[in-house]
Amino acid sequence: MARKKVAIVGGTGYTGVELLRLLKGHPDVELSVITSRAEAGRPVSDLFPNLRGRVDLCFSEPDVALLKRCDLVFYATPNGTAMKQVPELIAAGTRVIDLAADFRIKDVALWEKWYGMPHSCPALVKSAVYGLPEVNRQAVKTAQLVANPGCYVTAATLGFLPLLEQGLVSTENLIADCKSGVSGAGRGASVDMLMGEVGESFKAYGVPGHRHLPEILQNLSSASRQKIGLTFVPHLVPMVRGIHATLYARITGVADYQKLYEERYQHEPFVDVLPPGSHPETRSVRGSNECRVAIHRPQDGDTLVVLSVIDNLVKGAAGQAVQNMNLMLGLDERAGLDSLALLP
Amino acid sequence: MARKKVAIVGGTGYTGVELLRLLKGHPDVELSVITSRAEAGRPVSDLFPNLRGRVDLCFSEPDVALLKRCDLVFYATPNGTAMKQVPELIAAGTRVIDLAADFRIKDVALWEKWYGMPHSCPALVKSAVYGLPEVNRQAVKTAQLVANPGCYVTAATLGFLPLLEQGLVSTENLIADCKSGVSGAGRGASVDMLMGEVGESFKAYGVPGHRHLPEILQNLSSASRQKIGLTFVPHLVPMVRGIHATLYARITGVADYQKLYEERYQHEPFVDVLPPGSHPETRSVRGSNECRVAIHRPQDGDTLVVLSVIDNLVKGAAGQAVQNMNLMLGLDERAGLDSLALLP
Amino acid sequence: MARKKVAIVGGTGYTGVELLRLLKGHPDVELSVITSRAEAGRPVSDLFPNLRGRVDLCFSEPDVALLKRCDLVFYATPNGTAMKQVPELIAAGTRVIDLAADFRIKDVALWEKWYGMPHSCPALVKSAVYGLPEVNRQAVKTAQLVANPGCYVTAATLGFLPLLEQGLVSTENLIADCKSGVSGAGRGASVDMLMGEVGESFKAYGVPGHRHLPEILQNLSSASRQKIGLTFVPHLVPMVRGIHATLYARITGVADYQKLYEERYQHEPFVDVLPPGSHPETRSVRGSNECRVAIHRPQDGDTLVVLSVIDNLVKGAAGQAVQNMNLMLGLDERAGLDSLALLP
Amino acid sequence: MARKKVAIVGGTGYTGVELLRLLKGHPDVELSVITSRAEAGRPVSDLFPNLRGRVDLCFSEPDVALLKRCDLVFYATPNGTAMKQVPELIAAGTRVIDLAADFRIKDVALWEKWYGMPHSCPALVKSAVYGLPEVNRQAVKTAQLVANPGCYVTAATLGFLPLLEQGLVSTENLIADCKSGVSGAGRGASVDMLMGEVGESFKAYGVPGHRHLPEILQNLSSASRQKIGLTFVPHLVPMVRGIHATLYARITGVADYQKLYEERYQHEPFVDVLPPGSHPETRSVRGSNECRVAIHRPQDGDTLVVLSVIDNLVKGAAGQAVQNMNLMLGLDERAGLDSLALLP
Repeated sequence: MARKKVAIVGGTGYTGVELLRLLKGHPDVELSVITSRAEAGRPVSDLFPNLRGRVDLCFSEPDVALLKRCDLVFYATPNGTAMKQVPELIAAGTRVIDLAADFRIKDVALWEKWYGMPHSCPALVKSAVYGLPEVNRQAVKTAQLVANPGCYVTAATLGFLPLLEQGLVSTENLIADCKSGVSGAGRGASVDMLMGEVGESFKAYGVPGHRHLPEILQNLSSASRQKIGLTFVPHLVPMVRGIHATLYARITGVADYQKLYEERYQHEPFVDVLPPGSHPETRSVRGSNECRVAIHRPQDGDTLVVLSVIDNLVKGAAGQAVQNMNLMLGLDERAGLDSLALLP
Repeated sequence: MARKKVAIVGGTGYTGVELLRLLKGHPDVELSVITSRAEAGRPVSDLFPNLRGRVDLCFSEPDVALLKRCDLVFYATPNGTAMKQVPELIAAGTRVIDLAADFRIKDVALWEKWYGMPHSCPALVKSAVYGLPEVNRQAVKTAQLVANPGCYVTAATLGFLPLLEQGLVSTENLIADCKSGVSGAGRGASVDMLMGEVGESFKAYGVPGHRHLPEILQNLSSASRQKIGLTFVPHLVPMVRGIHATLYARITGVADYQKLYEERYQHEPFVDVLPPGSHPETRSVRGSNECRVAIHRPQDGDTLVVLSVIDNLVKGAAGQAVQNMNLMLGLDERAGLDSLALLP
Repeated sequence: MARKKVAIVGGTGYTGVELLRLLKGHPDVELSVITSRAEAGRPVSDLFPNLRGRVDLCFSEPDVALLKRCDLVFYATPNGTAMKQVPELIAAGTRVIDLAADFRIKDVALWEKWYGMPHSCPALVKSAVYGLPEVNRQAVKTAQLVANPGCYVTAATLGFLPLLEQGLVSTENLIADCKSGVSGAGRGASVDMLMGEVGESFKAYGVPGHRHLPEILQNLSSASRQKIGLTFVPHLVPMVRGIHATLYARITGVADYQKLYEERYQHEPFVDVLPPGSHPETRSVRGSNECRVAIHRPQDGDTLVVLSVIDNLVKGAAGQAVQNMNLMLGLDERAGLDSLALLP
Repeated sequence: MARKKVAIVGGTGYTGVELLRLLKGHPDVELSVITSRAEAGRPVSDLFPNLRGRVDLCFSEPDVALLKRCDLVFYATPNGTAMKQVPELIAAGTRVIDLAADFRIKDVALWEKWYGMPHSCPALVKSAVYGLPEVNRQAVKTAQLVANPGCYVTAATLGFLPLLEQGLVSTENLIADCKSGVSGAGRGASVDMLMGEVGESFKAYGVPGHRHLPEILQNLSSASRQKIGLTFVPHLVPMVRGIHATLYARITGVADYQKLYEERYQHEPFVDVLPPGSHPETRSVRGSNECRVAIHRPQDGDTLVVLSVIDNLVKGAAGQAVQNMNLMLGLDERAGLDSLALLP
């Protein structure tokens, strides 16, 4: 079988280099184009020295004609970029995965409120498939446009999912206390993300409201078919990679929660339910597409605690995008995603 | 006024060196004895090179006669040690602050269950004063024996206190999602706390039950005069110092929460209520005895989020002990505790 | 072709789990046994959760009969263990790679001085091949016993090699100022390697003498056919993985140093000479078997500065062992070693 | 005695906040003005939350009339700013300490080459006193304008000084392999200093030439009264504070080096010579004005190794500036600088 040709638009951030790393190791896919207006002409290995001697591509000016000839195009651009360029590709029949937020929220007015800009192609939002394979596997396979989920969203959704699908917890007061490494903030110059500012320190941020809130709500209410009350607090951890979601839900129905999780995810290639009493570490998924989950009922009380870890750049971004690509292109869902986490 | 003479029993851990640092800078107190069976005869500056040229003491064998002559003795020993030695000092009229857990829990049976050993002097537990000055200031002043609070406990209690005292939130489903730097685990050799194991990673631990749970419960039920339902989840942050408590409570009564916190703590020298919308960083209290608190009501919902940060070795241990000592010895409560946090 | 069967003796340390990770991804090899007296019966994925669902093996009691049936056995044991067990395997015709130091130093008396124990099989030391493929590729291919090089040694030797082979620098005053992440110290319980001790701090150690000194000297004098004067200072960096060697040599002969390095390593699959003016980062080789090297002549003076980075657990240990295994078993030297470094 | 009035010009960087911290704890000095064009009107505690409740000042627009009324003015501005403003203050008799590089290099042409701009007041360079008290104490006392040394420069100079003053080592091939925490790069927005870029990694930088090179050379040649050959390589450590200089020198004269160092620094309040065989850690000086030094002669060879650590923001910047201020204003040299390092 000829290798599929794929392209990355906007590959100068952490999501871009992670896509490059994963696609380089993919047996069935060839990265043929990577675009960046700012870095056009520069070898990608110049920006990301881990690619030296292994990835020969240079960044190129975006060229729609070239992109159209690809089997699939990844958008790793800032929010608001894909929605302007994707319609032309879709019209040409090209398949697209957007790693930004442009097509994630079905309620366009809500999206516009949280992202602070008008949406330029609401029609495509409707037809876009939300790319969480554990929920939408079949739809992803045939989708032309996939909205790749947010990082916090993936960790929180996979953690809450079995409970909400079965209606076993109150939907009024869910809590998602989430912690992320600094790579989640991207590679743009800023004082706030200097190591001098965030090293050896810990803080919450965005407590009044964070853009991943409406996306988590959309997923959870879809799973439970109910309105959701959720408090979501993101925090910044002085490390590079990893998300840890600590999720709290009040029991309304009794069940063997451990068994519930194991059964819900038994056929999922990238969700690992840990044995009772476990505490997953973010390093156990560093560089891998796994989500590891543990469920606790402390002191036999009425609150369940779910611990869910992912690598924010892999299952939280580029890895999930590759998983979606595999589904869309009819490849083995695990292809290119089988390397083990780097531990220690 | 002659300087007061104080002693430290068991000063080879992180709490010990932090006490040394703070007492060295204290204007009214002189550290005259520091004991360690294992390190007797060795200069303390040999173990803790930051003290070189500034602290001339050597560790000595514990000698009760010497300790009795001190105005106050700090116990910085492992749990279960102070309860065996303190009764003799108390009988001799010496005042004592125990930085371990021996005298923190009023319900001795409960203590024995969580700490896995019989208590050797239950009578003293009853007379011991719990050393959280923001709650027990007057009692501390005249106490002979003070139980210095746990680190997580201090952060969580100060964060919840105003709400519970005023009965403004449900006491059934409080959540304390707490994060600590690694120095909280002490200075004992262990695989689990190697930097190779905990560096660049994040995890929860002790979800089924952590010893600080009954202590937080005791404080909160005392403040609210009600039975408390609390889920407490501690996490380990890849940094050395600092605790961040993220606290969740469901509103049952409306109030100006910001004002409530400001008024509750307006005369407290070491609690700083941040302006609305703030996110305290642990580094803002590194090395200082401050607790910084911010209160949020995200999305105007029915869940309050309180953020509370302390330095686990200062307000969470040695600094609070010095604050208690100041109260007990009739000194300025702020004495020796006025240096600013080290930022960055 | 049937997959080769290999075994790991003593796989509970960082070198062991890294070997597991690399062998799991190797197309031509099957790990059939992993032994640990202490952990016998326990699933390896219990100790190293990154292996969950991917590596089903349990640790087993060492069993020489089983080991003999393998095509190759890795020893990832502490210094002094392999020399006691390997002779029996060698006698049986089994091929062995020792990742510890037992067979690295040809001068047995010197080894005994630095390692503080008598050597139990000096005869094997003589026949062992020092497994630095960039120097001994042909000998490794046919070796029955390979001594896998030390981590600092690999970084320093590859950095100095071209200059010493060509006799372009004084051999009297070489300096190797080396810096390592904490995983180099292994996974044994110790106070010194607690994150509370080594986090957010930097120090040199072993300045009076470190065991890698005689090994570096052996390599450099072999390359230059001269006696070497070398000052080697190792340092500890508050990070988990990576070694950075900063090497200083005084020019005695003029050459195009950049070209010299590029030519020396042009056919080496795992040595990457960076363009003039470069500064390699340890993260550019995190998790990969690459050594990246840059050569500088600051201010056109008479001192050359070579910067050399490796991942201490890969090219400095397990990766180099796999590279040696590939050579010994007639496989592609790159097999199982083609994944890209994890950046960021 | 009335407290002296001092001002800080440009206090929004790490040097500025560290000056604020130290001056706040100073018994004899009052900070009356802190200027910042960009942040004028904003409370300093807004930018640096560790100052909340303790420092009430707001940043103000620079106002020369106000500055002139101060006993001393600190310039914590970027290179090239002080040289434009200081002449007016000097003319008015105000005393000034510049923490930037404008007045450090006596050879103005050399300065212009390294700093890439013309010098606007060469005459003042001549009269400025280089503020390394261990060398220039008497001159500092009466200086009107003091050039505060660079951070790397302080660590390297204090480490080499005794050897060069006594002519015991070759001046042809000195090596200074220096490592710094990230706060040395300042608080400006940049991609290069994001935690996502520099966390969990180690690298050299500026090997072809770094601005501290001519300054170290100036100090060392002044001490030895000879031309110096020095190779200086700075490195970036993934931590916030601290510099570790590893210094190499070839012996030309025999001496009791340990005794030499102890005698040279016996009356120095801020230089601590460690016992033979020691390895100073950067954390042992975190937040303190100490420089800790150890001298080694590994393997009794002909190369000496000196290890020298400072806190780059204290003895490497703000602390040394306060030490100079104390000398200039006739205060106790230790005033305001007596707090112990924060360890762990």
